[in-house]
Amino acid sequence: MVLDTIKGPEDVKRLSEEERKELAAEIREFLIETTSRTGGHLASNLGVVELTIAMFCALNLPKDKIIWDVGHQSYTHKILSGRKDNFDGLRQYGGLSGFPKRKESPFDAFDTGHSSTSISAGLGMAQGRDLLGEDYSIVSVIGDGALTGGMAYEALNNAGRLKTNFIIVLNDNNMSISENVGGMSRYLNNLRADEGYNLLKKNVAGTLSRIPMIGSDLVGTLLRTKNSIKQLLIPGMWFENMGITYLGPVDGHDIKGLIRIFSEAKKINRAVLIHVITKKGKGYRPAEKNPSAFHGVEPFDIETGKPLRKKEHPGYTDVFSREICRLAAENPKIVAVTAAMPDGTGLKRFSKEYPDRFFDVGIAEEHAVTSAAGMAAAGLKPVVAVYSSFLQRAYDQVIHDVCIQNLPVVFCVDRAGLVGSDGETHQGIFDLTFLSSVPNMSVMAPKNRWELEKMLQFAISYDGPIAIRYPRGEAYRGLKEFLAPVEYGVSEMLYEESGTALLAVGSMVSTAEHIREKLKSAGQPCTLVNGRFVKPMDTDVIDHLAGTHHTIVTLEENVLRGGYGERVTDYVQKHYPQIKVVNIALPDAYVEHGNVSVLRNELGIDSDSILAQLKREGVLQTDAEA
Amino acid sequence: MVLDTIKGPEDVKRLSEEERKELAAEIREFLIETTSRTGGHLASNLGVVELTIAMFCALNLPKDKIIWDVGHQSYTHKILSGRKDNFDGLRQYGGLSGFPKRKESPFDAFDTGHSSTSISAGLGMAQGRDLLGEDYSIVSVIGDGALTGGMAYEALNNAGRLKTNFIIVLNDNNMSISENVGGMSRYLNNLRADEGYNLLKKNVAGTLSRIPMIGSDLVGTLLRTKNSIKQLLIPGMWFENMGITYLGPVDGHDIKGLIRIFSEAKKINRAVLIHVITKKGKGYRPAEKNPSAFHGVEPFDIETGKPLRKKEHPGYTDVFSREICRLAAENPKIVAVTAAMPDGTGLKRFSKEYPDRFFDVGIAEEHAVTSAAGMAAAGLKPVVAVYSSFLQRAYDQVIHDVCIQNLPVVFCVDRAGLVGSDGETHQGIFDLTFLSSVPNMSVMAPKNRWELEKMLQFAISYDGPIAIRYPRGEAYRGLKEFLAPVEYGVSEMLYEESGTALLAVGSMVSTAEHIREKLKSAGQPCTLVNGRFVKPMDTDVIDHLAGTHHTIVTLEENVLRGGYGERVTDYVQKHYPQIKVVNIALPDAYVEHGNVSVLRNELGIDSDSILAQLKREGVLQTDAEA
Repeated sequence: MVLDTIKGPEDVKRLSEEERKELAAEIREFLIETTSRTGGHLASNLGVVELTIAMFCALNLPKDKIIWDVGHQSYTHKILSGRKDNFDGLRQYGGLSGFPKRKESPFDAFDTGHSSTSISAGLGMAQGRDLLGEDYSIVSVIGDGALTGGMAYEALNNAGRLKTNFIIVLNDNNMSISENVGGMSRYLNNLRADEGYNLLKKNVAGTLSRIPMIGSDLVGTLLRTKNSIKQLLIPGMWFENMGITYLGPVDGHDIKGLIRIFSEAKKINRAVLIHVITKKGKGYRPAEKNPSAFHGVEPFDIETGKPLRKKEHPGYTDVFSREICRLAAENPKIVAVTAAMPDGTGLKRFSKEYPDRFFDVGIAEEHAVTSAAGMAAAGLKPVVAVYSSFLQRAYDQVIHDVCIQNLPVVFCVDRAGLVGSDGETHQGIFDLTFLSSVPNMSVMAPKNRWELEKMLQFAISYDGPIAIRYPRGEAYRGLKEFLAPVEYGVSEMLYEESGTALLAVGSMVSTAEHIREKLKSAGQPCTLVNGRFVKPMDTDVIDHLAGTHHTIVTLEENVLRGGYGERVTDYVQKHYPQIKVVNIALPDAYVEHGNVSVLRNELGIDSDSILAQLKREGVLQTDAEA
Repeated sequence: MVLDTIKGPEDVKRLSEEERKELAAEIREFLIETTSRTGGHLASNLGVVELTIAMFCALNLPKDKIIWDVGHQSYTHKILSGRKDNFDGLRQYGGLSGFPKRKESPFDAFDTGHSSTSISAGLGMAQGRDLLGEDYSIVSVIGDGALTGGMAYEALNNAGRLKTNFIIVLNDNNMSISENVGGMSRYLNNLRADEGYNLLKKNVAGTLSRIPMIGSDLVGTLLRTKNSIKQLLIPGMWFENMGITYLGPVDGHDIKGLIRIFSEAKKINRAVLIHVITKKGKGYRPAEKNPSAFHGVEPFDIETGKPLRKKEHPGYTDVFSREICRLAAENPKIVAVTAAMPDGTGLKRFSKEYPDRFFDVGIAEEHAVTSAAGMAAAGLKPVVAVYSSFLQRAYDQVIHDVCIQNLPVVFCVDRAGLVGSDGETHQGIFDLTFLSSVPNMSVMAPKNRWELEKMLQFAISYDGPIAIRYPRGEAYRGLKEFLAPVEYGVSEMLYEESGTALLAVGSMVSTAEHIREKLKSAGQPCTLVNGRFVKPMDTDVIDHLAGTHHTIVTLEENVLRGGYGERVTDYVQKHYPQIKVVNIALPDAYVEHGNVSVLRNELGIDSDSILAQLKREGVLQTDAEA
């Protein structure tokens, strides 16, 4: 095995051309074998094996820096930089991250996770390098999907001014997480398809010089506008117009060719974009055929490509997926918006049933939210389905374009709370805070699958901005008998006792129910309230409980700061200072990757940890763990 | 006066060509005269007088919709739609807003204030119009400066797919709030300058047909690539490549020509961009000469263009401006980043003293923050100076690119708190909330001008993400004698008494001091603490006060939700339930335009309102107002 001899870049550099090809094949096998056991990102990683090998040869790592946009395509990078043996712990608690992490390796130059940041980070680094008088190469590797994000354009616009070398690799696989959209995508398609560009580049100069009529009418007209000639002769004019040298397109699976173009690119004293054509999923037929399904995978059978574990019960995403389609049949004003996540958000089905009412805007959360505001202003009822951590990108648009005008946009905030193996960048642990502080916004969270349906119905009927947040994974099926109609700002009393009351939000209602059962069997029955609305918070229920309770415990899967618990505490402090409040929430810290149940335990928000805490705080009179 | 006859679009439509020119002149005079008294945005409004008149003729308003990007150039629009008589109350409490407001007029199709949103909003509206089977025109008017914002590009990318009419007016005055930057700006400059483009468009087809060698080598090569021909023949190829029809450039001060091009543009069933060249400040010499100074103006002398009121004392912006330059002289690693606001943030001086260490990235807050993260990763000490409400745009970048990696980026958050006449979109009332909830972030606010200097020194020396927030306007010069060194997470005890303690943050320290003096003279001395750090909050000071105080009053110029007061309440509730807490903060609502002192009073955060509230709540034993 060539792969076994690789401990770092020097080992890659000394391989022969044939050995490097062999290395690529072995890495593919390793990636498929590993992710079939651990799960992880597969298709994107299979696409950049040769590109990564070429960069390890052409660059001087880790002195030179590679910034991987999004970062889920960095597995080969991790393997070649001495982390192959850690892949058994990939994306597991305490193990290797699925994304680049500066704290994990000096080869990881910049942390990524969200899309379209790499050119900004790389350009900033280049500016730092130049000012500090240092000399190293910086390469930002960005996919064609990530190029639909506005940040990438902001960075390109600034990169055009740089007078030193900075390399942008456009990793063009004509397929981001989902299908690519928009004018940019079509433009890249043309570049890709149009052999003529390269042909033209080679031929026209010669052709021009061979024509006796140079200087006459046509050429005279051409030359009058120097840029027209440039546009004629140079492909990638879109980038050239921004001040960026365009090289390509080049075959992203030709290691030798890639090494050559990198050494050319390094000589250019400005920002250079190398347009590399790769195939997502390359080398594994099921992934080549369906790269979207092999974007992020659970453990699977290598032979068939089928997941090993069959999902037994629907997730919240599935529930949303079905219910939004059902509601759309009744209400023609409902439209759905996603930022390149039709699969992840469950809108795929809607896109097929209502193609005219479905808008995939690319990885462009800002535009997603503001165009939804425009649709609402025009009389539609837009539903924006988005992951919690990605909605952070459109915080200002939520404030400025939706909520100031009080427009009826529904936000379906998926992956809210702990998401598990994707780690720090993807945990949806701030949305209760950032959404609740926005005037005119209302925020709900369902306790179980049936409540998500009811909340979606309510949100569609509500005339203002409103968000429903729900977690990743299987939808809770307990507490099925509690079906109180959703009323604005009203929580749901599940079990009313006296003494201690649990006020839980969303995913934490099931945890609270578990705690309630344990307490009850230990002879200490307690009240359980399903918080439902994080905003407006239901103060009536607190007034109601105040006379008969000495303790209120709030539970939420969000940071404490600015969330549900702090709001409850504030109300109780002002009105019922005699009542003790305990807040169960996430600490003021980023949460690493790992299995969600492990994380819950580590963070003290699983039922055992909470019971232990309540005991420590003197809330429990009995040994409830027994 | 023609202007006096104008009550709506019909009145504009029936004017002769000459009368429209006269109208433009009268509007200019009116704008100059009005803003010289009320203050407001001037240069941008002078630039679009003819453009607005032309749209009122070419469109069927208010059925057709105009969306003004940023919106501070909408004065002529307001005048022509029947609001001329309200201009005396421009930007004053209860008066006309300086921005488009749906609630103000049916002619205002969409609220704006922040940059680069109009194409997204207009496109969403067009999608709504089409789905609802309606028929009207939608025009988004966006400046060349706003085109540096990533959102605008996200929207252009999506607009390229539209199969119905949607008009984008690129109002190109080669000058946004500050100088334009980047590749896009250079590209537009070329378009503007290159007469050849239009020439070429007209001539080449004819030229080609007159050449006998058509079909021979050169033309054959050309035709092999259909896009190359298109690139050759069509100006604005950058936009055409995105799938957007480009018309222009056209003279933005030729009403007749503009009307003609709008009627052409309306016939095209896709997104059309009309490139209109305007002169910012047109018709008022001081503004033409220095459009940046006449972007937003205080009342001024029309003859000289000089402000009527001379600023007596420096604002926080001035203090920052000087101190950052002084620190930069000592520390070569300090660099400064602004998103098109060198004047507003006070970085102009830095840009002149340290041009190599200054980065104006355009209206691109996302790139500003992430490129600063890149610079920090490369070893620099970047200072990002930005308005509070604009930092909302980069919330995800603060979380994802700066704070996860714990990179030492300093945020100087200007215009924090109430900003006054710019109103809802510009109030900086969420930053304590959204910044405090981000792990690894620290947040400070200075009580007076000297403390801002000390805090900036501290921030530069601190090895992690840290923000200093300070308000618009004159810096407080009281409490000069209190100069305790800034220590991490430690507040400053100003006056220690017993009973009631005021814990105030930033701008509210001066208000609290005023209250303290009144209370003292009424025989009820109280403790006054300068909160300094909103995060981490100083719990020691609360522990210290707990034994001798029955009441804590927190004061901040931020929404209550997730701010300083809620955090204090939470701590007190958990540890000292016997202490009463009163939170003075802003309500969960948008704050309209108006004089800051009027707003403070309306919102109950001026000293009289607070004293009255404390009396109502039983905190005051004496008649302190006396």
